[in-house]
Parts: sequence; C-alpha cells; structure tokens
Amino acid sequence: MELISENRAFGGRYLRYSHSATTTNCSMTFSVFLPPFASAEKPVPVLYWLSGLTCTDQNFMQKAGAMRLAADLGMAIVAPDTSPRGEDVPDDENGSYDFGLGAGFYVNATQAPWDKHYHMYSYVVDELPELIEANFPVTRERAISGHSMGGHGALVVGLRNPNRYVSVSAFSPIANPIDCPWGKKALSHYLGDDEQTWQQYDASVLLSKQNHAIPLLVEQGNKDEFLTEQLKPQALVHAAQQSDTQLTLNMHEGYDHSYFFIASFIDEHLAFHAGHLGLI
Amino acid sequence: MELISENRAFGGRYLRYSHSATTTNCSMTFSVFLPPFASAEKPVPVLYWLSGLTCTDQNFMQKAGAMRLAADLGMAIVAPDTSPRGEDVPDDENGSYDFGLGAGFYVNATQAPWDKHYHMYSYVVDELPELIEANFPVTRERAISGHSMGGHGALVVGLRNPNRYVSVSAFSPIANPIDCPWGKKALSHYLGDDEQTWQQYDASVLLSKQNHAIPLLVEQGNKDEFLTEQLKPQALVHAAQQSDTQLTLNMHEGYDHSYFFIASFIDEHLAFHAGHLGLI
Repeated sequence: MELISENRAFGGRYLRYSHSATTTNCSMTFSVFLPPFASAEKPVPVLYWLSGLTCTDQNFMQKAGAMRLAADLGMAIVAPDTSPRGEDVPDDENGSYDFGLGAGFYVNATQAPWDKHYHMYSYVVDELPELIEANFPVTRERAISGHSMGGHGALVVGLRNPNRYVSVSAFSPIANPIDCPWGKKALSHYLGDDEQTWQQYDASVLLSKQNHAIPLLVEQGNKDEFLTEQLKPQALVHAAQQSDTQLTLNMHEGYDHSYFFIASFIDEHLAFHAGHLGLI
Repeated sequence: MELISENRAFGGRYLRYSHSATTTNCSMTFSVFLPPFASAEKPVPVLYWLSGLTCTDQNFMQKAGAMRLAADLGMAIVAPDTSPRGEDVPDDENGSYDFGLGAGFYVNATQAPWDKHYHMYSYVVDELPELIEANFPVTRERAISGHSMGGHGALVVGLRNPNRYVSVSAFSPIANPIDCPWGKKALSHYLGDDEQTWQQYDASVLLSKQNHAIPLLVEQGNKDEFLTEQLKPQALVHAAQQSDTQLTLNMHEGYDHSYFFIASFIDEHLAFHAGHLGLI
C-alpha cells in the first residue's frame, strides 16, 4: 500500500491509498476515514461505501458530510474507486460515462476485453476487506451502503453475502439493472448476451428468490431525474413482498439524484448501520 | 437573475444564480442555501461565505457540510464566486492560481487592466447583499465568514463595515496580506506600487488601528502548509492586543488547509454567528 494523502478530519484521519490489486489486475485507489481513538486495542467496525457512475473514491468523503457522525459513533468508512483504472485498462470506445472507466458496476466481467481487469465484485467482497482488516485498526464487522450504481452494488454484495455484512443500505440504487438502459448496457458488455448470467447482479431478482434476514434500508428522492427509467425502486419493493423480506424504502418529496440528497439523509443511514454494528 | 440549478437539501433549497453585476461589469454567479420555512413572512438572516483561491461559489456548499446545521438554525448562506469571470475579464498572463481569475482578493482594483472588472470588495459589501435582500426571504441581519483568501476578505469586509455585519469569522485567513507573497503579488497588481493603498485591505493593519466592537472568531490548523509563509495569524493576535479588541483564535493540532478542516469546525462557526444573529 502506498499513502497518497492524509488529512485530519473531525478528530480522526482521512487517508487515501493505492495498492496493487490481484482481483482487478491493476493499481487500485481507496479512501479510509478512521474515527478518533481507533487503535489496535480498540478496533472499530467498517462501513463500506460504493459510489456511483463517474465517481472515484473521493466524492463521498468530500461531499456526503458523513465523517462528522462516523467520528462520534466510532465507525470507519472505506470507499473504493468505481472501476479499475490505468493505461492498461480498457474503456468504452465512445468514452461514455455509463460503461467502462468509472462504471465497473461491481460485477466480475466474463467477456473480453473486460475480463482482464473488471472484477469489482471480488475486489469489493474479498480483496479490499482483507486488505483493510490486515492494515487498519478495524474489526471484521462490516456494513455496506452506496449510491446509484453503488447502491446497486451495495444491495447485490449484501444480499449475496449476508454472513459478511450486518446491514445494507442504498441511496437511489439501480434496483433492477437487468431491466434498465444503464444496467442492460453494462451487463451485456461485461457478462455477454445470456441474460441468465445477469441475474446474479440484480438486487430485485436476488431479493425475490428467498427470504433474506439482512436489514435493508433504501432512500429515494421523488424528483430524481433517473427514477423512472433507470432506478425502479418499486421492483425492489415487489421483490421484498414476494420473498417476505423486511425492506424499508423512504421516498422523499422534492429530492434529486445529487450528493445534496445523500448529505441530507446520511446520518439516518449511519445510525441504522451503527445500530446493527452494535455501536448504539 | 437567472436560475442555474436548484437542489433540495436538508429540507431547504440550494440555488445557484447568475446575474449581470454593475460593480464587476460582468456576469456573476452565486450560491444560496435557504433553510426550511424561510418565507416573506418569516425571513431569515444571512451568513455570507467568501471562498479561497481557485474556488467558485460551489466549493463551500458541496464540501463544508454547513447546510445541516444552517437548516436547523434557520440561517441562509450566500456564497459568491471568488473573482469576476468571462471572456472579457483579464487573467494573469501566466495563468497562475494566486492572481486573476479565481483570485480577486476581495479588493477594488485601481490599476489597468484589472480596474474594469476586479471590484470584488464593492460586489461583496454592497451589490450582492442588495440583490439578495431584494429577491430572497431574508432579513438585513448579516454575518460573514470565509477561508484563506476568503478569510482575509471576511475579516476586511467585517472590520471596515461593522454596521453591516453582526459577527465575523475566518478559517485559515491570509491575516496580514501586505506582508506575504500571495498578498504582495495580488495587491501590487490590483492596487499598484504604493503600499499605503494596500493597508485598507489588510485585516491586521485594520485591526491594530482602533478598538473594534465586532465579534471575531478565527480557526487555524497548525499543520497548515501555508501557515508560516502566507497566513500569519500571529499578526492578527498582535493587532488585537494593540487595539484592545476581543479576538478568539483557536489553533488546532494536526489540521491542514483543506475543506476537511473547515468541515470539522464549521458547526462552531455557525453557532457563533447564530448567537450574534439572535437565532440561539
């Protein structure tokens, strides 16, 4: 690991690192916020945050206003990048924002040329937590959240790995990617034309298949410009009903897809995860 | 005024506007946060925020995490841009970050070619408040704060206009610009070689000259990379002692010049201003 930068914040530390990742076969960058008093003797649990299209590891740390309460709660936050990057990593030939660099969709790609680097699912589920838990004063208690593409990622990662996360939340998630333009474009390129293979990365499909015990919280603004065409939270609600799983979906009048929406309700999500992490 | 964007945030509204400004002779952009329930019947006081070098009206609103408490307190926040801008507005010929575009230093320039547009002092003191008070549900009670170059601006504007602001605060201000590289470069270009004319824009000089009744709060990190060469808060402390003026300077162990420092202590500044604005 190589330290990129360090800032003191809310009595804790905001750190950025790069490291050579085996899952994505390239150098990856991530951000960590460590609350005050986190130490080997007093390790803290970790909230993983997955960001949306075009973001890096930095957006959430700069814009969400999450460090304030995380510092009080004694919770670390880890935010990975949204895709592999580097000269060697292929990008969409049209340079579009919704596929390729900055748009890894938290899947393990199976199709060339994407399959060499685009393994964000394994990176997020396995490699990153292993690295974090080996190098920082944290416990093995984890929660996961995210926004938009990262909300999709958090839901999929949490639903498929309930033994690894105590709670899952999402802001404005792409809730049914097999049935929206962003999802179809990304999944067809990363996974190929067999739509059966897409289902393992669709939160609504995963949720509908069995009863899940993991606590789920979703926040959504009703003025979100992507709500109807791309996000489709009603698919998630329907799936939760089908499988008799507890899901809390809060719709908010007037809020859009921006970080101002996340900032407005991040404290509720931190408190939700803190409750399940045993911090409050 | 032309609305650029609107986002709901913390139950209030974050708005960006452009307007044709007479003081700066160009189109200016500003940001406004209006707390919930602000209305013509229940107007709210305004905290003006002046940003630092290279910033726009957006940085503070996106990164400081100030809206959360401002919404609770019932305080509007207005953030102007840091310089005039546009094709017609001259920039430093070397494109440096510390002079010209993004670096108006909150002065009224007297030297060509800067004197046609670089009148940020009058824009901040007169034109912008007049516009805000004519168009938004706000009172005429004002406080002012800022960061770095904007901390300098807030101190100068507040000390020179104690009848217009109830309280002044600053994070990491350029406290003695006539005696630091950033200040000397900017003031010599905007005001010419007569250093006597610079003094009207130097907070330490202004503070030393007479006893000031306006409450002053300054926050500074001791790991700030610009502390020794550019910021010089001890000049401000010395001037306050000379003039027997109350100044609170809080030094913070380990904090740097970034927005993470501002975010860490913005709530204390909002509470300070809220007290003087009669909100708490």
